[in-house]
Amino acid sequence: MLKRALFVGRFQPFHNGHLHAVRAILKEADELLIVVGSAQMSHEPDNPFTAGERLEMIKCALDAAGVDRNRYMLIPIPDAPAHRVWVSQVESQTPHFDIVYTNQPLTRRLLIEAGYKVRGIELHMRKQFEATEIRRRILMDEEWGDLVPPEVYQYVKKIDGDARIRDLAKTDTVNKRRR
Amino acid sequence: MLKRALFVGRFQPFHNGHLHAVRAILKEADELLIVVGSAQMSHEPDNPFTAGERLEMIKCALDAAGVDRNRYMLIPIPDAPAHRVWVSQVESQTPHFDIVYTNQPLTRRLLIEAGYKVRGIELHMRKQFEATEIRRRILMDEEWGDLVPPEVYQYVKKIDGDARIRDLAKTDTVNKRRR
Amino acid sequence: MLKRALFVGRFQPFHNGHLHAVRAILKEADELLIVVGSAQMSHEPDNPFTAGERLEMIKCALDAAGVDRNRYMLIPIPDAPAHRVWVSQVESQTPHFDIVYTNQPLTRRLLIEAGYKVRGIELHMRKQFEATEIRRRILMDEEWGDLVPPEVYQYVKKIDGDARIRDLAKTDTVNKRRR
Amino acid sequence: MLKRALFVGRFQPFHNGHLHAVRAILKEADELLIVVGSAQMSHEPDNPFTAGERLEMIKCALDAAGVDRNRYMLIPIPDAPAHRVWVSQVESQTPHFDIVYTNQPLTRRLLIEAGYKVRGIELHMRKQFEATEIRRRILMDEEWGDLVPPEVYQYVKKIDGDARIRDLAKTDTVNKRRR
Amino acid sequence: MLKRALFVGRFQPFHNGHLHAVRAILKEADELLIVVGSAQMSHEPDNPFTAGERLEMIKCALDAAGVDRNRYMLIPIPDAPAHRVWVSQVESQTPHFDIVYTNQPLTRRLLIEAGYKVRGIELHMRKQFEATEIRRRILMDEEWGDLVPPEVYQYVKKIDGDARIRDLAKTDTVNKRRR
Amino acid sequence: MLKRALFVGRFQPFHNGHLHAVRAILKEADELLIVVGSAQMSHEPDNPFTAGERLEMIKCALDAAGVDRNRYMLIPIPDAPAHRVWVSQVESQTPHFDIVYTNQPLTRRLLIEAGYKVRGIELHMRKQFEATEIRRRILMDEEWGDLVPPEVYQYVKKIDGDARIRDLAKTDTVNKRRR
Repeated sequence: MLKRALFVGRFQPFHNGHLHAVRAILKEADELLIVVGSAQMSHEPDNPFTAGERLEMIKCALDAAGVDRNRYMLIPIPDAPAHRVWVSQVESQTPHFDIVYTNQPLTRRLLIEAGYKVRGIELHMRKQFEATEIRRRILMDEEWGDLVPPEVYQYVKKIDGDARIRDLAKTDTVNKRRR
Repeated sequence: MLKRALFVGRFQPFHNGHLHAVRAILKEADELLIVVGSAQMSHEPDNPFTAGERLEMIKCALDAAGVDRNRYMLIPIPDAPAHRVWVSQVESQTPHFDIVYTNQPLTRRLLIEAGYKVRGIELHMRKQFEATEIRRRILMDEEWGDLVPPEVYQYVKKIDGDARIRDLAKTDTVNKRRR
Repeated sequence: MLKRALFVGRFQPFHNGHLHAVRAILKEADELLIVVGSAQMSHEPDNPFTAGERLEMIKCALDAAGVDRNRYMLIPIPDAPAHRVWVSQVESQTPHFDIVYTNQPLTRRLLIEAGYKVRGIELHMRKQFEATEIRRRILMDEEWGDLVPPEVYQYVKKIDGDARIRDLAKTDTVNKRRR
Repeated sequence: MLKRALFVGRFQPFHNGHLHAVRAILKEADELLIVVGSAQMSHEPDNPFTAGERLEMIKCALDAAGVDRNRYMLIPIPDAPAHRVWVSQVESQTPHFDIVYTNQPLTRRLLIEAGYKVRGIELHMRKQFEATEIRRRILMDEEWGDLVPPEVYQYVKKIDGDARIRDLAKTDTVNKRRR
Repeated sequence: MLKRALFVGRFQPFHNGHLHAVRAILKEADELLIVVGSAQMSHEPDNPFTAGERLEMIKCALDAAGVDRNRYMLIPIPDAPAHRVWVSQVESQTPHFDIVYTNQPLTRRLLIEAGYKVRGIELHMRKQFEATEIRRRILMDEEWGDLVPPEVYQYVKKIDGDARIRDLAKTDTVNKRRR
Repeated sequence: MLKRALFVGRFQPFHNGHLHAVRAILKEADELLIVVGSAQMSHEPDNPFTAGERLEMIKCALDAAGVDRNRYMLIPIPDAPAHRVWVSQVESQTPHFDIVYTNQPLTRRLLIEAGYKVRGIELHMRKQFEATEIRRRILMDEEWGDLVPPEVYQYVKKIDGDARIRDLAKTDTVNKRRR
């Protein structure tokens, strides 16, 4: 029987560590549901890209990497109004799944308390904080292209995403969180 | 250059008219974004299935119909807090699109006011109200299998969806809308 | 070991059928969690009383009926943003429970799908629609005191609740749902 | 000392009865706060116009009628998450006021329970349902210009508002309330 | 005539300072409404426990301490969408009360502006920050049992609450606030 | 033809830099829509005043400064559920506008991405952070009257706003954000 895995991330942006994880999970599972979390978030220093932009960059990167589209589905899911109902919200917006892959402690804890089997993602080096490092490099105008698939790099450039990240950083402390 | 179309529906459930529309649109567009609307809705007489269940039934039906997964993407989107910001919410959660297909007057109006090109879907017979008719037949325990792809029929049976629809109908007027 | 039951209702208002149900459940369970549902609702023809007013009337009625306060707890819970996460929201706001008593089809269905054991409440006569009947009588200025515990009757009179119900009925169709 | 009045309405659209009311209130009060209620609503058969469109039409009509802008302020206020907190929400978004004018039973009841002095608006004829009648006439393509100030008529024509109302009416029952 | 007091707290977790306060208030008031605030919050470093878990631990601790259940009521209340309507939301979900006890400056300020009589809670030592200190000790695996009633200690152990707090602390800065 | 400008701010509180900006914009535009942003916010250290209080202080200051009420409109707008739909929400609650004036990087970015023409506001000195400086001075009980129009100073004093700011600052870190 087929086994379906869930992979939860914010993908701000989708990077080489994520791509590596997708490939590793697809060696253990038949199908993969990639949940694009905090889907409503964008235009924040830590969440610069919209869910739509993230769907686009992930699809391009997986296509270029030769990952078979028959084996995964991308699903944007907004934050829940309370942590305790988040698992229930994910269940309501995804097809049935058997196992979850995540390295985020809160996500892991909520899913384990709900009775799910959760595995960590083996990231080479300190890839865990790669997205943070990428956003930092973009902000500082340092080279970041080697940390993401080429398609992600081109897409971010095309939508002027690096200028957006730099613009958002100008926001003062209060306005970071609201207008 | 590639042209991407958007097809908006609630798919409660996905039926033959929807399948016909997907095929027709894919003759005119290169790629198709299928928006599963009112994603947060379920367990109501008019919205019995969760977004996750709808994603599952659509994927199964399109696979069986031989529709190439490289040419479409399924995207669940919850209702917006106000009609006037709905288009903006759709834009934020989908990759860029060039044209929209829908027969729903409100959806059509909102997209046109936002400057989009909108086309109607040619439905044979009075398919427009097919989903309503299917839910009515399930409720009355009449035969409904000929109105949907076989995979949708089997899936609804498997998740006990027809019993759910009958159970929800027992709810009195007030409780239909809330607990 | 102790067994704890959950009893879900809107209690608009709390009536003799509810009181009867509380007593019947307390013969089968050691402790009872009484969930005052749709807690955020009030000032509507079908939901005239606030959660606070309902807590007050239930407490008074149970005290007068000699129900031991050590055996039940009253818990107001607002509606969930989506039916599918309602059970999860209830779980997050109540102590652990073993069984549920309810006659509402939607509530019953959601709890059963979540794996709970659900029992119906034996109501003498057609008590199921008693709250609707009580609100109708108040509206029509007919006698309704015999359908509720005397404490509920006095409390509704004291807070001018019957005038409120009659005032709300004057609202025209559109304004019933919003201002 | 100055006396400030509050006038609550949805103004879908602003009509002669409303204009008459504004003039009447300004004979009794020094200043007037005109609350454009259900501000988030639009593109519904009963709420066709956005708050912005309503602000525009009211301002034009009052200017043309020679109502001094120093004596009134327009304030859009969205619906509250619960009726019982609506008064509190209004208080938080308006300058201090001394008296309220409204004919809506729910609005009246909520304000009275909160301790406010509320007066009815004397409408000549059955103006109370004028907005409903106007929307009906637009829908039926009957003459409606005599029921509103000329500026409102021109503005609705200019934004193609009558076509919008007719389009929204095509929506089937389910889709009226959501997409 | 009876006097009813309101005591507002988050009780993350309920500790000896809270128990001391309940006893002190019940010397001055006839009845006590204990509002379990931020009811929707859980699984955060500063809000680890669900409202249901907090209701359970408070009830156990008060039972063991011999506090008469006829003299208090526990009421979970979620945060309001805006501070200015919070008092109104509390009023809607609680029976009528005469006086409030709290040491939280924002809560105190909001209630005073709404016209309530507010008293501080005399806490021996610097008990005010006791909950913060308890969470810190659990995180550091230091001894914390002497700061809470024994029933709270046992309950937190039973639900594996200390492991939850340590797990949540692993979350990186961004993910602390959302998934 | 008339040109209408939009000026977005939180005005916590309205100060001399804001007044200067209003005058400067009215030299370039015929009409001005002043959006009072984060309208739902109040009783926070960084957002002490309600939208209603801010409307009152702005109106008084502009009246005293001789700004013609026929040339501007004040519009309170709450935060949007997501940054990406904020522009759409503003459009829905304001009359049509041609150009926007703002110095806030996030606001500027969102409007530019939506296709609007955005200009900065020339503030003499480092007025940009004037509101922060004013709140700091009130907190520290330093002189702040020279940074705001006299009417704002008097109004804040009258509503006891400086005591409120000092009270809110007493709140501990956790409670700053919620009760």
